[in-house]
Amino acid sequence: MSGRPKKIVFGLIGAGRIGRLHAENLVRRVEGIRLKSIVDLRVEELSSWARSLGDVILASNPSILLDDSEVEAVVVCSSTHTHVDFITRCAKAGKHIFCEKPIGDDVSQIQQALRWVEECNVKLMMGFNRRFDRNFLRVRKAVRDGEIGEPHVVKITSRDPAPPPVDYVKVSGGLFFDMTIHDWDMARYLVGKNIEEVYATGAVLVDQAIGQAGDIDTAAAILRFEDGVLGIIDNSRQAVYGYDQRVEVFGSKGCVLVENERPNSARIMGSDSSRRDPILHFFLDRYTESYLEEMRVFVKCLMEDRAPSCDGRDGLEAVLVAKAAQRSYEERRPVRLDEVR
Amino acid sequence: MSGRPKKIVFGLIGAGRIGRLHAENLVRRVEGIRLKSIVDLRVEELSSWARSLGDVILASNPSILLDDSEVEAVVVCSSTHTHVDFITRCAKAGKHIFCEKPIGDDVSQIQQALRWVEECNVKLMMGFNRRFDRNFLRVRKAVRDGEIGEPHVVKITSRDPAPPPVDYVKVSGGLFFDMTIHDWDMARYLVGKNIEEVYATGAVLVDQAIGQAGDIDTAAAILRFEDGVLGIIDNSRQAVYGYDQRVEVFGSKGCVLVENERPNSARIMGSDSSRRDPILHFFLDRYTESYLEEMRVFVKCLMEDRAPSCDGRDGLEAVLVAKAAQRSYEERRPVRLDEVR
Amino acid sequence: MSGRPKKIVFGLIGAGRIGRLHAENLVRRVEGIRLKSIVDLRVEELSSWARSLGDVILASNPSILLDDSEVEAVVVCSSTHTHVDFITRCAKAGKHIFCEKPIGDDVSQIQQALRWVEECNVKLMMGFNRRFDRNFLRVRKAVRDGEIGEPHVVKITSRDPAPPPVDYVKVSGGLFFDMTIHDWDMARYLVGKNIEEVYATGAVLVDQAIGQAGDIDTAAAILRFEDGVLGIIDNSRQAVYGYDQRVEVFGSKGCVLVENERPNSARIMGSDSSRRDPILHFFLDRYTESYLEEMRVFVKCLMEDRAPSCDGRDGLEAVLVAKAAQRSYEERRPVRLDEVR
Amino acid sequence: MSGRPKKIVFGLIGAGRIGRLHAENLVRRVEGIRLKSIVDLRVEELSSWARSLGDVILASNPSILLDDSEVEAVVVCSSTHTHVDFITRCAKAGKHIFCEKPIGDDVSQIQQALRWVEECNVKLMMGFNRRFDRNFLRVRKAVRDGEIGEPHVVKITSRDPAPPPVDYVKVSGGLFFDMTIHDWDMARYLVGKNIEEVYATGAVLVDQAIGQAGDIDTAAAILRFEDGVLGIIDNSRQAVYGYDQRVEVFGSKGCVLVENERPNSARIMGSDSSRRDPILHFFLDRYTESYLEEMRVFVKCLMEDRAPSCDGRDGLEAVLVAKAAQRSYEERRPVRLDEVR
Repeated sequence: MSGRPKKIVFGLIGAGRIGRLHAENLVRRVEGIRLKSIVDLRVEELSSWARSLGDVILASNPSILLDDSEVEAVVVCSSTHTHVDFITRCAKAGKHIFCEKPIGDDVSQIQQALRWVEECNVKLMMGFNRRFDRNFLRVRKAVRDGEIGEPHVVKITSRDPAPPPVDYVKVSGGLFFDMTIHDWDMARYLVGKNIEEVYATGAVLVDQAIGQAGDIDTAAAILRFEDGVLGIIDNSRQAVYGYDQRVEVFGSKGCVLVENERPNSARIMGSDSSRRDPILHFFLDRYTESYLEEMRVFVKCLMEDRAPSCDGRDGLEAVLVAKAAQRSYEERRPVRLDEVR
Repeated sequence: MSGRPKKIVFGLIGAGRIGRLHAENLVRRVEGIRLKSIVDLRVEELSSWARSLGDVILASNPSILLDDSEVEAVVVCSSTHTHVDFITRCAKAGKHIFCEKPIGDDVSQIQQALRWVEECNVKLMMGFNRRFDRNFLRVRKAVRDGEIGEPHVVKITSRDPAPPPVDYVKVSGGLFFDMTIHDWDMARYLVGKNIEEVYATGAVLVDQAIGQAGDIDTAAAILRFEDGVLGIIDNSRQAVYGYDQRVEVFGSKGCVLVENERPNSARIMGSDSSRRDPILHFFLDRYTESYLEEMRVFVKCLMEDRAPSCDGRDGLEAVLVAKAAQRSYEERRPVRLDEVR
Repeated sequence: MSGRPKKIVFGLIGAGRIGRLHAENLVRRVEGIRLKSIVDLRVEELSSWARSLGDVILASNPSILLDDSEVEAVVVCSSTHTHVDFITRCAKAGKHIFCEKPIGDDVSQIQQALRWVEECNVKLMMGFNRRFDRNFLRVRKAVRDGEIGEPHVVKITSRDPAPPPVDYVKVSGGLFFDMTIHDWDMARYLVGKNIEEVYATGAVLVDQAIGQAGDIDTAAAILRFEDGVLGIIDNSRQAVYGYDQRVEVFGSKGCVLVENERPNSARIMGSDSSRRDPILHFFLDRYTESYLEEMRVFVKCLMEDRAPSCDGRDGLEAVLVAKAAQRSYEERRPVRLDEVR
Repeated sequence: MSGRPKKIVFGLIGAGRIGRLHAENLVRRVEGIRLKSIVDLRVEELSSWARSLGDVILASNPSILLDDSEVEAVVVCSSTHTHVDFITRCAKAGKHIFCEKPIGDDVSQIQQALRWVEECNVKLMMGFNRRFDRNFLRVRKAVRDGEIGEPHVVKITSRDPAPPPVDYVKVSGGLFFDMTIHDWDMARYLVGKNIEEVYATGAVLVDQAIGQAGDIDTAAAILRFEDGVLGIIDNSRQAVYGYDQRVEVFGSKGCVLVENERPNSARIMGSDSSRRDPILHFFLDRYTESYLEEMRVFVKCLMEDRAPSCDGRDGLEAVLVAKAAQRSYEERRPVRLDEVR
């Protein structure tokens, strides 16, 4: 009815913290789509929230959307270990997929799922939301447009404000997998080349309980890309001053770098010091707009029938670097990605 | 159905640029309210836009909301010369009012309207959106909390990226009225005291056509507040580098200042210079969040039955300072507000 | 002897704080000159300091240098009220003059002295040291080279870290004379035009004793230059966070601004705030290099037989603006410089 | 004559670029000492420069100062391969030594020289001038005073504005030796702990001729200190935007970082970008004051009979890390310092 173009119908699987964020963005802030159904086992618990979204069906059985021919695209926000299965089922059902990272932890299963995506001719976009942050977008643009010449070194500092619960650490696959996964992708994204080798090391400096759980809380890694470009990443589970997220790309004609985001620009000059409020602490505050932007980009890809810039191959590469980093750390030597491919 | 609290029903008058922004915020981003009806003469032209908002009535006759007992609050975004009339009619209809600035240009009419607001016991909040910008809020907090001691001097730089059309200049009441109105209010807000005297001067440096229309395009003013506090404001109709909005409050124990907002934090260090992208150019980009925040604050005042922090008296004071400034400029002397009260 | 070029022989009058600074710079850090003699009444007290300079004669009688035909240039650092007399005597003795600011306080006496300078064909450079600060030099360059187009507004913030003794305030001629004198000159220097009118106001907000001594401690002024360019200056006797010295020139193609100098660039990001050490507090720390640079420029002018860029006319203009500002403050109205010329 | 304390008599060996800088500082800007003699083979070429210093003897034979019982301290600025020999001869002659870095390249020879220093009971200070830069001093202070808690990670970016001549690269010992030597020391200095292991890698990205000479021009290294603290260093032979010198120490209670130095603080906001002049390009501009400060500190150590904070042991440790880094690069594995000790 009327001249309004038909909206793309979406479903969503997994209404955890990120899933709910995506659902709210889809309903309130993304144009051109309709969120029809949400799948989550906790139907009771989520019913009030789901009602606040308006006309959205909430159910525990994924068939509610997989078998709904009206649903064209599915946002997968369930637990990591379910990703490859849902990607495969969505692909077979002919539905486009937006999948949270990481794509999985078993390389051959991931490869199998990606083959289904290709075979079924659906689009798959990975939710590497940081790629869609206005600051990192500007860095990428500077590199791509040659503003700094040929890239020589990429540097990423990525520190969380506080460590996750130790119980999470025990099952997360470790820091290189649950935390650095963003940075492996960001390094590839900013440089625009593939990583060939990684040397990673780390220490337990924040909390001994993390060490007892078999993980580290402080890490540093050196990457070698194609063509000899170098990458440097450092992580910490606990930066008491906030969510420290900085990148820098150094090249033959210059250097581009971005700073942390702050809640305001006020500087207070007092007799003892000049001070500013601390940088943003919570990742959802820091990356609010990037979560929205990535979804808008996904919708635009669907509308214009274009391949997503950030696809399953990117999801797989980040996992491969994480695996190489883990091995490097354990065996105390640089590891080529060929070893884990 | 269910325990959801009843939503406050809103109407809106005047769907120009700012009116449409408020309408969209009310529908999509403000919790706890329902926008029921919009009044604008251009019903035909706005129908498609109005439909995109969902269940909203669009009509040309204000009685559609003034006579609707379900409507509890009205957002007035019509032309300035209609403000006092709509304020009065809304007050008499028992509806709370959010009114765009300036409140009007005739002091006695404004005073009359404010008496009706008081008599009818409705709330009136003025849309001085800049008060709700995160940066200026932080400055105000620093002053209020004594972080800089007693305020001695407030400084405001406020420059538009480009001059308005000359036709607008002819009817706007002049720079002190259409542009500095924000700064008169901001100065009072930051210091937390009333202005007693103003000296204002100006020049035509940007465009001779503005001078021929009887206005200036560059201005400077010195304010005297109660207790001897000084204020300094400078304006330009054209800052080619963007929408330049900075404030500073200097006091007995320090100084607080805020910078302009930028589209990103990237710095590019090249062989000739280190550079950043220009500051934001468009006022809607710069103040997006403040427009949303002021509406949320208004809704909160209604829900909690509290008086708005920014009311009709604030609207009137800004107009009085503008009048004194205009007289100061014309008569080349400092003018006390008592003269125009 | 040998191929070394002959050094220019200097004398110096007045070895107070600034005089001693100039003497030490002349002996240790300025090439191409020899400081031969210093005149100060406190011969006893200064003897040890003078010996540390090497072969320098210290005497109480100015004839020691005025009558010494070897002395080609004299640095005048004595009390302000002696400046015009020493300028006149130096000029008549055929010696070039470097004179600390202000040049004096009696306009007709200053004019008479400047006539002698001209008649005797000696060079006179005024010690407006801030003109030689690397930051303000860069601002001036940006204006002169058209980097910001035509200047529209110049803004100067100039705040001392602590008020002078009240006894000094009683004899200094007042804030507009002893403190803003730098800013009147800086405004003219940055814009490159003459000031036509000034409106100045002020208040006693720092220390009532200053008010009782007949002065103010907080001030604001608006200048009008030729061609309608506007200037804004604000001063305070006490910025507890340090010596606050900032300037900004806004023009048709952009805006150039400089920040305060800090003792180091370290930022410390803590859980409560990000902080930096306060800005420099002491004017000699802040302007160390500018005092040296102005002397090097003076020597260069002598060597190359060029007129100083900052001469007696500049010294006089700053005094005239100070007088107009004082009258403006007292009579509460804008005052044209023609009135005091 | 008079109460002036006796000055410490200095000699200097090697009047190359740095040697001349030290000599000029000693003569003009360091209190309490007298530079008596300079040794350099190029007596003819340097005679005019030496005369400009006043009463200083210039000779080609080091016995001029080694056999001069008046000389108490010697500044060694000759070629690196002569350092251990001159340190040994100075020590045997009972003279205190200030030695430019690196201390040498043969570990056992260095150790032998250090034994002589100890046996002869003379002081030896290494010229790690960057330790005396006001910015890095402030970082060190923050770490030492616990402002950032326990250090977890130190990061150093150190990039030269332009590569040295290839002929220099062939004999310099390579990037890890001639360039990173500063950073190995800086990392130890900032953290205040010893380095236990290093992994270093690099690439030829700037100039193939450097690769053909057997060296690299871009490098990255990860250090492990005692207690698991991590260090990250990256170098480039060519940062076209200037001499890029930044450090950061991240700890349990915060993070301290310093920025590059600029020629001025001016920001120019134009319609295309906001820009600043590039950072300082030349290391002597960047580190002018640190070269002076280190010499003042050395003189103070002599006057107060205190051990220098930066001694032969520090010189040796930096060389050991460089050797380990070189081996790590060649053998593509992390190398413990124990291997090269």
